[in-house]
Amino acid sequence: MTKEFFTATPINEVLALISRFTPVGTRSLPAAESCGRILAEDIVSGINIPGFARATMDGYALRAAATYGASESNPAFLEIIGNVGMGKAPIQKIGHGQAVRIATGGMLPEGADGVVMMEHSSELDETALEIYKSVAPGTNVVAADEDIATGRKVLCSGSRIRPQEMGLMAALGRMEITVFKKPVIGIISTGDELVDISQTPEPGKIRDVNTYSLAGCVTREGGKPRIYGIVADHLDSLTETCARAVNETDMILISGGSSVGTRDLTVDVIKSLPESQILVHGIPIRPGKPTILAKAGQKAIWGLPGQIASAMIVFDRIVAPFVRQISGDALSYRQYNRIQAVLTRNLPSVQGRTDYIRTRLLEIEDKYYAEPVLGPSGLIRTLIEADGLIEIDTNTEGLEKGESVTVILMR
Amino acid sequence: MTKEFFTATPINEVLALISRFTPVGTRSLPAAESCGRILAEDIVSGINIPGFARATMDGYALRAAATYGASESNPAFLEIIGNVGMGKAPIQKIGHGQAVRIATGGMLPEGADGVVMMEHSSELDETALEIYKSVAPGTNVVAADEDIATGRKVLCSGSRIRPQEMGLMAALGRMEITVFKKPVIGIISTGDELVDISQTPEPGKIRDVNTYSLAGCVTREGGKPRIYGIVADHLDSLTETCARAVNETDMILISGGSSVGTRDLTVDVIKSLPESQILVHGIPIRPGKPTILAKAGQKAIWGLPGQIASAMIVFDRIVAPFVRQISGDALSYRQYNRIQAVLTRNLPSVQGRTDYIRTRLLEIEDKYYAEPVLGPSGLIRTLIEADGLIEIDTNTEGLEKGESVTVILMR
Repeated sequence: MTKEFFTATPINEVLALISRFTPVGTRSLPAAESCGRILAEDIVSGINIPGFARATMDGYALRAAATYGASESNPAFLEIIGNVGMGKAPIQKIGHGQAVRIATGGMLPEGADGVVMMEHSSELDETALEIYKSVAPGTNVVAADEDIATGRKVLCSGSRIRPQEMGLMAALGRMEITVFKKPVIGIISTGDELVDISQTPEPGKIRDVNTYSLAGCVTREGGKPRIYGIVADHLDSLTETCARAVNETDMILISGGSSVGTRDLTVDVIKSLPESQILVHGIPIRPGKPTILAKAGQKAIWGLPGQIASAMIVFDRIVAPFVRQISGDALSYRQYNRIQAVLTRNLPSVQGRTDYIRTRLLEIEDKYYAEPVLGPSGLIRTLIEADGLIEIDTNTEGLEKGESVTVILMR
Repeated sequence: MTKEFFTATPINEVLALISRFTPVGTRSLPAAESCGRILAEDIVSGINIPGFARATMDGYALRAAATYGASESNPAFLEIIGNVGMGKAPIQKIGHGQAVRIATGGMLPEGADGVVMMEHSSELDETALEIYKSVAPGTNVVAADEDIATGRKVLCSGSRIRPQEMGLMAALGRMEITVFKKPVIGIISTGDELVDISQTPEPGKIRDVNTYSLAGCVTREGGKPRIYGIVADHLDSLTETCARAVNETDMILISGGSSVGTRDLTVDVIKSLPESQILVHGIPIRPGKPTILAKAGQKAIWGLPGQIASAMIVFDRIVAPFVRQISGDALSYRQYNRIQAVLTRNLPSVQGRTDYIRTRLLEIEDKYYAEPVLGPSGLIRTLIEADGLIEIDTNTEGLEKGESVTVILMR
């Protein structure tokens, strides 16, 4: 056990540091382009919706009182005084015993307070109507303010805009809305063994996988990746690139440095940046123990492990909530990204550490099974085969075959 | 019960019609921009990954046989003959009793077949090494083809590209990949009561909410919405716009026409299009019964209900799988968009019909509760408050408070 393990910050304390970071800013956006964005204003309705009483069925608008006691054997008789044209304000005024033809969505005339469905009535001639069922006031009618009343706060800042929220903006006539800006996340890869993906690696070298996996992770979480490429494992070049990234981005991911020497280098580089502070140096998780979190001014800088599975799992479980925080995504806990499944084999673990196990999900006869994908954290294949992660928490010694486990989806 | 109900097509038969439609085509895309897209080629690896045997720990590369029997009380003694530089092909050849210093990710020299962790060894001087633990061949080593072997099919056409798939493309050196094109989905709103969202509706009129909600739905499912705006409820204008949309898009959504007359109009318009065929006219679901599915040439045309909640629920449960089909999304069943929750009230239903109930999800002490959001299907608010849908299938008469129900998320 290395010294580092003893100075590690528990995962819940790491996540509590989220509150030290604030959203990167807001901008105006056409509402029609806002799907998936995070709202940066409270939306209060200035109008009633639908704005007038509407029929919810095809039939006859009338005074409900005129139908009281009506039945198949004892119908009520009413006078038809006209039609309500769709999209028109009716000119008729309905008195007791009078009715107008109305279609779904039509506006109720003055005096009418209910709609009888076509199926419960019969026209004897152009003006004579039989009603076979009594209705109460408000039946088959949406009131003028029933959907949304003037002054109602309909959406809160921090909400994610789904298709229905786009519809709501349309209903309110909001053409432009204020959303949070997408944070720009700088991605730096370090490691003398790395070559750009366009090159054929010589023996001992590998292509820079982490940059592209992490760019995908950033995109998925609603950020904009900015790729700085491969930087040599030397103090000067890494410091220069980091300083530039602090100026140009809202958060920095430095990936690489699985070896002790490189981790120390990352710490030295961060310490040399203006207004910098190491907040976390080691987290008792596996994989991902050597993770570093620092702050330079208002910006988070992460030192992520170089092994691809470690880097992606740390991003998913630790970094992503910070990305959402600076994206203004206040309600992201409503993600429902967990599936209950039956574990297909024993999984050993040790107390004092949180383990994340890559896991395939199998669906057999409407039941989910979690099949761990084992292998070193340097293998990209294990992530391709995995649908999610099983978390074995710090107080659990292991999980048994047949147990119900929670799988956190990695989409 | 209207005549239409008897001619309705059961929901499973509607969904079986998906096979009549094919993906809209493929295109080449830089792999770095492919997050979330659907792969349109099988990916077979032309190389071994990592391509050489690598250390997975900081320590010493050696012949495992030289450590057999080693323990704290009886260490093995080896000669250190150098270091492996990160990213370098080692020049040393390891004989029995020899070792080189190696960092995680380093390339094993010829003759070495295992790595002893630094923690299980001690350097007596520059060249003398004590080993306290025996290792088997392959320990702390990833073999040259252990991640991916040459010739292995690593991804199938139809897969959705997640961040880890982007990493895999990087590892293979794939700069460009073939993905399915995003289908262009035309959106037409009909109804004389509708005004554009930029206008203030006069009495009897409402803003065109459906266009924007459906545009959001299309975006969410990976399509590109193309908005045709509001078309008057008349045969000529609707036919003209539909004919244009058939030429310009890959699928058409006509929303509106809650009333019987307008539904008949939509059918007449579709019948007048070249090579057209009505496939479905009515589905025994609620809301959404008057849904129409037709085909004009190879393109699907949908007649959706005008009520906003009906239109969105039909899109979510019926139309979306067709959008994914023409997007090439073969594996979309792996969406895991269902949550088990405890129902908070009784829900009546009738046999012979599938009901979709808008539902809020509450999380109380790690347990989910499903709280139905009731209200007419014309209310947008009910969708804003809902997190998902409860499906009450055709053979169920209703659900009881306290039952475990499945909530289909509406993201």
